[in-house]
Amino acid sequence: MGNVHVSDGAAGAATALGSDLHLDLTEPGSRRTALARALREAVRSGRLAGGTRLPPYRSLALDLGIARNVVADAYAELVAEGWFTARQGSGTRVAQGVAAAPAPAAPRRPAVAGPRHDLVQGKPDPAAFPRTAWSAAARRALAAAPADAFGPGDPRGRPELRYALAEYLARARGVRTDPERIVVCSGFANGLRLLARVRPGAWAVEEYGLGFHRGILDAAGIRQHPLPVDGEGARTGALAALPRPVRTALLTPAHQFPTGGPLLPSRRTEAVEWARSRDGILLEDDYDGEFRFDRKPVGAVQGLDPERVVYAGSLSKSLSPAIRLGWLVLPDALVDEVLAAKGVRESWASALEQLTLAEFLVCGAYDRHVRRMRQGYRDRRDRLVSVLAERVPAVRVTGIAAGLHAVLELPAGTERAAVAAAAAEGVALDGLSGYRHPGAAGSPSREGLVVGYAALPERAFAHALDALTAALTRATAPPRP
Amino acid sequence: MGNVHVSDGAAGAATALGSDLHLDLTEPGSRRTALARALREAVRSGRLAGGTRLPPYRSLALDLGIARNVVADAYAELVAEGWFTARQGSGTRVAQGVAAAPAPAAPRRPAVAGPRHDLVQGKPDPAAFPRTAWSAAARRALAAAPADAFGPGDPRGRPELRYALAEYLARARGVRTDPERIVVCSGFANGLRLLARVRPGAWAVEEYGLGFHRGILDAAGIRQHPLPVDGEGARTGALAALPRPVRTALLTPAHQFPTGGPLLPSRRTEAVEWARSRDGILLEDDYDGEFRFDRKPVGAVQGLDPERVVYAGSLSKSLSPAIRLGWLVLPDALVDEVLAAKGVRESWASALEQLTLAEFLVCGAYDRHVRRMRQGYRDRRDRLVSVLAERVPAVRVTGIAAGLHAVLELPAGTERAAVAAAAAEGVALDGLSGYRHPGAAGSPSREGLVVGYAALPERAFAHALDALTAALTRATAPPRP
Repeated sequence: MGNVHVSDGAAGAATALGSDLHLDLTEPGSRRTALARALREAVRSGRLAGGTRLPPYRSLALDLGIARNVVADAYAELVAEGWFTARQGSGTRVAQGVAAAPAPAAPRRPAVAGPRHDLVQGKPDPAAFPRTAWSAAARRALAAAPADAFGPGDPRGRPELRYALAEYLARARGVRTDPERIVVCSGFANGLRLLARVRPGAWAVEEYGLGFHRGILDAAGIRQHPLPVDGEGARTGALAALPRPVRTALLTPAHQFPTGGPLLPSRRTEAVEWARSRDGILLEDDYDGEFRFDRKPVGAVQGLDPERVVYAGSLSKSLSPAIRLGWLVLPDALVDEVLAAKGVRESWASALEQLTLAEFLVCGAYDRHVRRMRQGYRDRRDRLVSVLAERVPAVRVTGIAAGLHAVLELPAGTERAAVAAAAAEGVALDGLSGYRHPGAAGSPSREGLVVGYAALPERAFAHALDALTAALTRATAPPRP
Repeated sequence: MGNVHVSDGAAGAATALGSDLHLDLTEPGSRRTALARALREAVRSGRLAGGTRLPPYRSLALDLGIARNVVADAYAELVAEGWFTARQGSGTRVAQGVAAAPAPAAPRRPAVAGPRHDLVQGKPDPAAFPRTAWSAAARRALAAAPADAFGPGDPRGRPELRYALAEYLARARGVRTDPERIVVCSGFANGLRLLARVRPGAWAVEEYGLGFHRGILDAAGIRQHPLPVDGEGARTGALAALPRPVRTALLTPAHQFPTGGPLLPSRRTEAVEWARSRDGILLEDDYDGEFRFDRKPVGAVQGLDPERVVYAGSLSKSLSPAIRLGWLVLPDALVDEVLAAKGVRESWASALEQLTLAEFLVCGAYDRHVRRMRQGYRDRRDRLVSVLAERVPAVRVTGIAAGLHAVLELPAGTERAAVAAAAAEGVALDGLSGYRHPGAAGSPSREGLVVGYAALPERAFAHALDALTAALTRATAPPRP
């Protein structure tokens, strides 16, 4: 206990060191490990300064009541690691400089407290994750996995998953494909980056969209030509007027993101015709295509021409963004190029999770989950609409009944105040203008709020609705006289 | 059966179409889906040409013996998808151009048949994956996961995993850290790319290494200065002579890759001193640090100075490259920069697998697996060494007894012939010269074979050894008179 013995004799040094080491030698079999750890700590803390000569094995062993070879092994370990130096004739010493820079205690980074009412779009209900079904699928998939599943893998992704996806996407989304044209990736963003690599140059994008996706295209050196958007999706008539180098268009046909219109049928064919006319490709971002509430979902544009449309999907909305899995359904001509762009393993998806998802699809658990969530999200959206109609009739919900978010249309000049009023009530959500492309010119600038209604637990959603309507009532109230 | 009725009456057209649709209406509840699918197929196949006017709902319904509204719903579905057009007064027609480009059957890409005897380095034994223990850990982790685990996640990675890693790495690898300095990534390559982004400019690298890693640094615009390598790892004395802008060095201290030397203790301190002298950073690639057979593994260099060494590890060698998980242990000063470089979710690791690994570490299954594999790989290496000594005594195994591969030293001028002789026996492996940095100048050029002994099943390994020794006997035999 703090009694530092000063001594110039080896046995004395051993006693001093021994009493200072706070060794716990009760665990059998770990004496050498414990001694090595204690010696490292003594150097780190400065108790053993650089250059200090260590007591001979025998002395320290006697002092600690352990075998001499345990001490010799521990010394050798610290020599190998660079803590000690051993020179013929001068014995073992503490290396110079090792303890010179003790690690300061890292400043704690506290988990950032979220807003009281989180209505930011983009997240499915985390509490609804089908733990039992996913766990069971994982167990079955792991038990049935061939040994090569634990090897380095294949840039295309596991065949089990590609087969299951081909079946599911044909059935549920009208996608025309076979497993050979499917490339598994780690989410939509990963797929977007891959496609940007094989389709460099200039792209058409919708005037409303996710800034994160625009950023990926910017980083890939893609020049973006914004397409006007209205209540029926992108105005594809504008494609023909774009300069010839624009041969790729990123679209959200099922449910324009975030404004909410489904792409007009005639515009679907128009976009496909445009792609055919200039060796073009449409990238169909089917981010929430499974979640249409008012009718059966419209099938993918990809079905109209699999050689001109890349279909992209992921689990981020349908299951959870925590599982990093997505897929590209590719025209035959692009498969090899995309695989080459995937290159080495860096962003490949986990093979075990791919097998789990394949099993989850094949056993019908995915369909059951989507059906259940569709009903749940539909109820949420209906409540949002009816509560707003009752309490803030001036605010209208636009877009089709689909997905995990809605857009509340606001009168011009009120968006900023509405977002601020919401924040004052503890409600986090985005204004619509943040989703507008900086280069947009074709669509009239719209104001509104983008409300994600999927992620909050039931009771919290009710409170969030109260806070939101209170904020909107205040923000849209006529100025007092 | 092939009887196409020609008729200009609506009822006749309905009969013609009806008999052509091959509808399976036996599944209850799916009539509309079945009809819509059959109609799509008819358009795709060209049986319904662009512009064709479709029979009225009533006629087709009568012909097929289904309800009129089922036909109306199916038509509406195809209109919404762009297959049909519906105009006031002209009824429903097949859209023009939709079937113009039927998808050709994708050429099958057969799975490439591997070599008969795969001795390429880099892969752990896929058959040894601890399925039961991993599956159990996954189940427990999923059951215990808080709801936020299914949300968008955190660039640092799950706290459960960072805590488990901090404990494990301190105990098993002598790493000094706390969970706040650990950033989970999707493997070593991902970590390397992140570090290249926050430490741009010029790096020192070992003269022998993985071309794939050199490629990542090249792609990130990093100028590489090769460090000479000998039997005791990188010659760190050469660091001081490098131009001042070189302030980052990539090292494999536990087991130089692939030549097999452990970094000499005095070089460990020398490298750390160098980093301190010029605001530098060492990146310690501890790719197989757990697998030392002749003695207890030497602890990480990181322990000498956590503010000057980034420690990087992954599951690729210890468990499986199929699970895309790795980790960086960072100096405090780099944490925020690396998190910023991670940016949005694209290459984040699956939260569910992070939780599974955390549980796998905490319950001791990882330690048990590593211990079991260490014994297995040690046996493999011993057999390789003894079989070679017996049958091809001219060929020497170099490097320490560690890891999943060994280097067979060859006389100058024989490597190419040895690789070719091995290939002729159906043995796939790499020559050592492929691992040499193109700019290498400090180390004498060495010839040899890099033999991965971990991945083959037991019987296959015995056959591979036979084939390899036959090839080497031939390649090293003195020329016939």
